Amino acid sequence: MVKIAIDAMGGDDGAKPIIDGLVLAMKNNNNFNAIVVSDHDELDFYIPKKFNNRIEILKCNDVISMSDQATEALKRKESSAYMAIDLVKNSKADAYVSAGHSGASMSLATLKIGRIKGVSRPAIATIMPTVTGTSLVLDVGANVDCDANNLKEFAIMGQVYASEVLGIDEPLVGLLSNGEESSKGNDTTKEAFKLCENIPNFMGNVEGNDIFNGTCDVVVCDGFVGNIMLKAAEGVADTITTIIKQNLRRSLISITGAVLMRKVFKKLKLKVDYAEYGGAPLLGIKAPVIIAHGKSNSKAIKNAIFQAIKASDSNLNAIIENRLATYKD
Amino acid sequence: MVKIAIDAMGGDDGAKPIIDGLVLAMKNNNNFNAIVVSDHDELDFYIPKKFNNRIEILKCNDVISMSDQATEALKRKESSAYMAIDLVKNSKADAYVSAGHSGASMSLATLKIGRIKGVSRPAIATIMPTVTGTSLVLDVGANVDCDANNLKEFAIMGQVYASEVLGIDEPLVGLLSNGEESSKGNDTTKEAFKLCENIPNFMGNVEGNDIFNGTCDVVVCDGFVGNIMLKAAEGVADTITTIIKQNLRRSLISITGAVLMRKVFKKLKLKVDYAEYGGAPLLGIKAPVIIAHGKSNSKAIKNAIFQAIKASDSNLNAIIENRLATYKD
Repeated sequence: MVKIAIDAMGGDDGAKPIIDGLVLAMKNNNNFNAIVVSDHDELDFYIPKKFNNRIEILKCNDVISMSDQATEALKRKESSAYMAIDLVKNSKADAYVSAGHSGASMSLATLKIGRIKGVSRPAIATIMPTVTGTSLVLDVGANVDCDANNLKEFAIMGQVYASEVLGIDEPLVGLLSNGEESSKGNDTTKEAFKLCENIPNFMGNVEGNDIFNGTCDVVVCDGFVGNIMLKAAEGVADTITTIIKQNLRRSLISITGAVLMRKVFKKLKLKVDYAEYGGAPLLGIKAPVIIAHGKSNSKAIKNAIFQAIKASDSNLNAIIENRLATYKD
Repeated sequence: MVKIAIDAMGGDDGAKPIIDGLVLAMKNNNNFNAIVVSDHDELDFYIPKKFNNRIEILKCNDVISMSDQATEALKRKESSAYMAIDLVKNSKADAYVSAGHSGASMSLATLKIGRIKGVSRPAIATIMPTVTGTSLVLDVGANVDCDANNLKEFAIMGQVYASEVLGIDEPLVGLLSNGEESSKGNDTTKEAFKLCENIPNFMGNVEGNDIFNGTCDVVVCDGFVGNIMLKAAEGVADTITTIIKQNLRRSLISITGAVLMRKVFKKLKLKVDYAEYGGAPLLGIKAPVIIAHGKSNSKAIKNAIFQAIKASDSNLNAIIENRLATYKD
């Protein structure tokens, strides 16, 4: 049975949503166990008795907070993140989930669990809502300066994750650029375009709007561009929501209108709500690592755990290693 | 009186919206004349007689189409873009407006009109809607590979445009990055951060969402990031609109609801409608150059012409030259 190591510390709202999310996950899936690392003394208070035999609690004495440097993580051996990663490194758990300091999780995972053979740099992938479904975008933050070969590796890793974990058949992968033509791009992406041409289902350059219109299953960029694009997208969504809400208040002329808008917002939420997807996988690490948003609610944590289970149950990493070797130049 | 050279060709819908936009502008502003370059034989058919003395028509024999390479533009001396730029170069007009091939306009403007002293590269700036007003983002497409000094020049040019043409008092300028801290960024933006520190009202790094939340008046990035961010933002707006419309159709339970939503859409359009802002100025050229969207309607063209007039009436370029010299390292 899959065992998930959960760093219960460092999320914006403390351990409660993490434990609630774990309990939700256990109610919906009988086929995993968990080890929770926390400095909380009365954690079992939140856990229904029937799950006691599936959840082990490991006490830690330290938490890496959002204001700490990621580089400190390796020295903080008593921290929840360090101890949870250690469980995976020592084969006491199969996968890692955390809503804490994402840089610390990345550093610890990369340096302690280690990279898959052939991976130069792990990448954070995130699932974006599209008109027709979802797309996977990577990298969204781990690597701000990338070379063409890094981008090619991201393309391969993203494609394998999309097929093996997200269940997309023969996923199309595109290179995020400033135009569709192969002549478009900056120096790095133009070189990456050439390197990617031997990858099956490589559709060439895609543009910013293609992330959301369902053109493409996997979108590849460096972490600098990915981070800016992601935050800009969230900014636009927030702005539009604000404008709609302002106008709703002003012109709320009847109960009918209010009912209608509640329906619209509910559907909208379902599509753009990141809690739906749970967390962002860090691809290229020897074991599944899921980085959840600091603001994750229990539903987001539940879905992050489900992603970790699905990745553990798949052949994700073996296939990534194999593909990287096959499509090496 | 200001004279505007208008390339009436190459827009997605031909010369009609351009001429209609010009007529709209003339109805609202008596203080400018125009020279229109077009291959159309019966252009004056669209122009009310009372404006005949304010509009000169220049016949061309060639149009640079969207599928042409920008590099061809310099050889196509009979094209509308070439001839309109030539009018500005030879001081027969003060500013240039086009909804045609933007790359051609940029190349022609840069090579024939020339750059302001101290400008390494001209940049395209675009006006984005925010919760509280607008922000100016540059570069959004002219330069895909930029060094730190290019970014610093963009910061200065954008700030001057925001104050002199958009009328923003002491505009705040930020560097688009993957985090606010000065330690965040890729190699180029980290270097640019240091170079920008002596610019007044430099607020350091800003993030993707800051473009839309009113934190910052001027946002600086390279043209690769700017283009991707812009298209991603449009993609999100389109996706949300699509979801709302789908749900409206499904649950349109009363006239009341429909009336309410029309109001919301109208307000939304007012905020996110790029026609409001008319066009994107190409900054760093010795004369005002406004690049309008290929899909521009008459209102967008009217506003593009107003931007060109406002820039012509300002001391924009003298101030840019002066500031670039003052804040040179």
